[in-house]
Amino acid sequence: MSLSMTDNTQHENKITPRSEDYSQWYLDIIQAADLADYSPVKGCMIIKPNGYALWEKVQQVLDKEFKLHGVQNAYFPMLIPEKLLKREAQHVEGFAPEVAVVTHAGGSKLDEPLILRPTSETIMYEVFKDWIHSYRDLPLLINQWANVIRWEMKTKPFLRTTEFLWQEGHTVHTTEAEADAYARKMLGVYEAFFRDYMAIPVIIGVKSENEKFAGALRTYTCEAMMQDGKALQIATSHNLGDNFAKAFEIKFLDADGTWKFGWQTSWGLSTRSIGGLIMTHSDDKGMIIPPMMARTQIVIVPIISKPEMKESIEEAAQAITGTLRSAEYDVHVDTRDIRHGEKYFDWEKKGMPIRIEIGPKDIENNSVVIARRDTGEKQTVSNTDIVSKVTETLNTMQKDLHDKALAMRKENIVSVDSWDEFTKALEDKKFIMAHWDGTTETEKVIKDETGATIRCIPFDSQEESGKCIKTGRDSMKRVLFAKAH
Amino acid sequence: MSLSMTDNTQHENKITPRSEDYSQWYLDIIQAADLADYSPVKGCMIIKPNGYALWEKVQQVLDKEFKLHGVQNAYFPMLIPEKLLKREAQHVEGFAPEVAVVTHAGGSKLDEPLILRPTSETIMYEVFKDWIHSYRDLPLLINQWANVIRWEMKTKPFLRTTEFLWQEGHTVHTTEAEADAYARKMLGVYEAFFRDYMAIPVIIGVKSENEKFAGALRTYTCEAMMQDGKALQIATSHNLGDNFAKAFEIKFLDADGTWKFGWQTSWGLSTRSIGGLIMTHSDDKGMIIPPMMARTQIVIVPIISKPEMKESIEEAAQAITGTLRSAEYDVHVDTRDIRHGEKYFDWEKKGMPIRIEIGPKDIENNSVVIARRDTGEKQTVSNTDIVSKVTETLNTMQKDLHDKALAMRKENIVSVDSWDEFTKALEDKKFIMAHWDGTTETEKVIKDETGATIRCIPFDSQEESGKCIKTGRDSMKRVLFAKAH
Repeated sequence: MSLSMTDNTQHENKITPRSEDYSQWYLDIIQAADLADYSPVKGCMIIKPNGYALWEKVQQVLDKEFKLHGVQNAYFPMLIPEKLLKREAQHVEGFAPEVAVVTHAGGSKLDEPLILRPTSETIMYEVFKDWIHSYRDLPLLINQWANVIRWEMKTKPFLRTTEFLWQEGHTVHTTEAEADAYARKMLGVYEAFFRDYMAIPVIIGVKSENEKFAGALRTYTCEAMMQDGKALQIATSHNLGDNFAKAFEIKFLDADGTWKFGWQTSWGLSTRSIGGLIMTHSDDKGMIIPPMMARTQIVIVPIISKPEMKESIEEAAQAITGTLRSAEYDVHVDTRDIRHGEKYFDWEKKGMPIRIEIGPKDIENNSVVIARRDTGEKQTVSNTDIVSKVTETLNTMQKDLHDKALAMRKENIVSVDSWDEFTKALEDKKFIMAHWDGTTETEKVIKDETGATIRCIPFDSQEESGKCIKTGRDSMKRVLFAKAH
Repeated sequence: MSLSMTDNTQHENKITPRSEDYSQWYLDIIQAADLADYSPVKGCMIIKPNGYALWEKVQQVLDKEFKLHGVQNAYFPMLIPEKLLKREAQHVEGFAPEVAVVTHAGGSKLDEPLILRPTSETIMYEVFKDWIHSYRDLPLLINQWANVIRWEMKTKPFLRTTEFLWQEGHTVHTTEAEADAYARKMLGVYEAFFRDYMAIPVIIGVKSENEKFAGALRTYTCEAMMQDGKALQIATSHNLGDNFAKAFEIKFLDADGTWKFGWQTSWGLSTRSIGGLIMTHSDDKGMIIPPMMARTQIVIVPIISKPEMKESIEEAAQAITGTLRSAEYDVHVDTRDIRHGEKYFDWEKKGMPIRIEIGPKDIENNSVVIARRDTGEKQTVSNTDIVSKVTETLNTMQKDLHDKALAMRKENIVSVDSWDEFTKALEDKKFIMAHWDGTTETEKVIKDETGATIRCIPFDSQEESGKCIKTGRDSMKRVLFAKAH
């Protein structure tokens, strides 16, 4: 049952190479970097401190960003009366198969079953209607950091778990245009977060009717390419139109003196993004954490090869730690009583961005060795240059990780114009830009035959006449197909 | 169903005076300050942005403090297999009557029911046993910020809700002494937080056997006196002994080569503390937020009594806002198109620590008026002194709120030596220090007859011979009795 591993310096924790078994590699990385553990509950994982630190970074960055956009945090009950879920027809159809139901509580059977929130539209909007009366009450911009439950058949740590953590933003506006613009603005917040912090380039666009959120008018998405060529839907933002406003009677008295329905958005990013982070950057040695996502950026490993040098090396390590902390870096000094080779191995697995080695020769030369996790590159740096070199290395690493992921995606995205090319490109694990006739029917046929889905209609897909790769019918735009996690 | 109120500047939102109906006053304050709303789910509340901002402050301060003590955050599933809850006999006895049970999920009946966590000892410790092997793995110091569910019959916003938010710390140590010291240290963290941030003086001590946490060896508690003279248990820290370690087989190989059971603690503080904050300081005009707990410390109200002065007043308001923000204060300028008297009324209800008024006369004199929420005191301050006067006023207000609460408690705590005195003191709504024979039986008789419980045996209660107020049996120490929320 347990993946847990307390002494993860032991070499027997082998990481399966990506080339051999990508899925197993992913699980091995999670274990090697001590990010999560399986739990006694089917499909639920335990987020261990190393994994939770990544989520805390997500929270810290996004929460600040949301507040700059005028969003306020609140908290709504996790229990939802069954009848509320049923209020919006498409919404209940989408979520009913996945809900967990509380039938008994306090020793008795409940009069009405309560479901565990799979998402909070219904419980929030039932109350929003009481919060909104006039156009002066709008826009209403609310966010919630919460756990949600969706009963999944096949689960995988971070990527798809029965319980997961997320933020869900919910807004109400006076016009459809304003709601749509807000949904796209928040998609932009996600896109920038993935680019600037997670070093993940995402393709942004709109979902097909078939793939949109249950109850939405339109779903915008961030789609990322993982190292196995599969797509990961890593954040979504929905223009809900007035679907829920009509179902929940969210009305306001407009400046023109008439009552109107509100226009709504919802948008969310979950612990799934941590799965995307792992799968985008890590290698066969272990996790790679982009510096902007790392709780601790630097580990210092004193190399006590000559016992008589122990004291001076430890003093130097302390002095450098002080210098780097003054520059606002989070530094860890690894003083464990194990060989330094084991320490290197351990921090590589855990994805520490920079390792600083201080040995006898370094003391003599007033220098240290800086090793970079992603490239393995080492450079000898004079003590006086440490802060500037560390800063430079971290910045370069952050940029390189993004650029490497972007280059991989560019290499692996192809335009095809026939069914043969399409199936061949899928075998080659490509992202595919292809024409499609715009029908859900064709989309489903393609999915059934190949497993590929329309990830999105990218915003930057140009108008262009073409023929659907499956039906040969007219199409005005290429859409993005891929197999997805 | 709904307490909600969108235009809370309306004077009809009357606050019931404390003297008339304390319970209703409390609910009125929550509504007036827009802290929470009732939800469509029995016993669950919605924490509105103003209320959630208080919780965010709690999280921010405590999370930092825990990390300084070496604690790491993690996240465990909210669903717990029923059989796990049953592992520790006293624990299940304490919590079984309060649990909510998931019996169906994903469209099918579950093989084994899952309970919603009322607290996480069992789900955590089932895994801790796999994380701990050697004394080198200890101490294990884990915290979780989470929602929990306890099916309560009588609920009240913040103070007792079916779902609430909290943090729960869980640690494992090599010796009983270390565990006990850690439990007391975390109690000290809570005590300092209440004193320095919430301006709530608490009495710390140990719970009686009857009142301790289900499964604990010993429960330490912070007890605060509310304005109605009742006690509020506002945070607890438990020495769990090796009770759970034995039930969950948490063993480690000690340095002496023998296998030993771990010694554990758990400690928690919840959204209930917000209820304590409200009840400690607020008055008949509304909420009072201690400056250290306020998201925004200062509201600026421009007084545009002469339209020709509008521009210069607004400019002055902007300049002062800039000055105060440079000094790291969070400032709000109230530009709403309503009378300034209504604004005063509104911010008083919401507990804004300081109001700055800028009117035509102030512009002429290069001054502003600073009004303090708790005392209503106003002072005219020269523009050049604003930062220092605001700082001084906020510091004084923070200290005064604490001292006022402490003075109230000192006035309302009495030592009694007979049953008559005891019942009389209870009628007078006092905290009572009295001798008790140390038996659960006597404690229960006293509770049944009077409704008073032993809140704790205060750490500073001196050894002193005496006779139990109920049975006349020997006692060596006075304990604290009170009625409690």
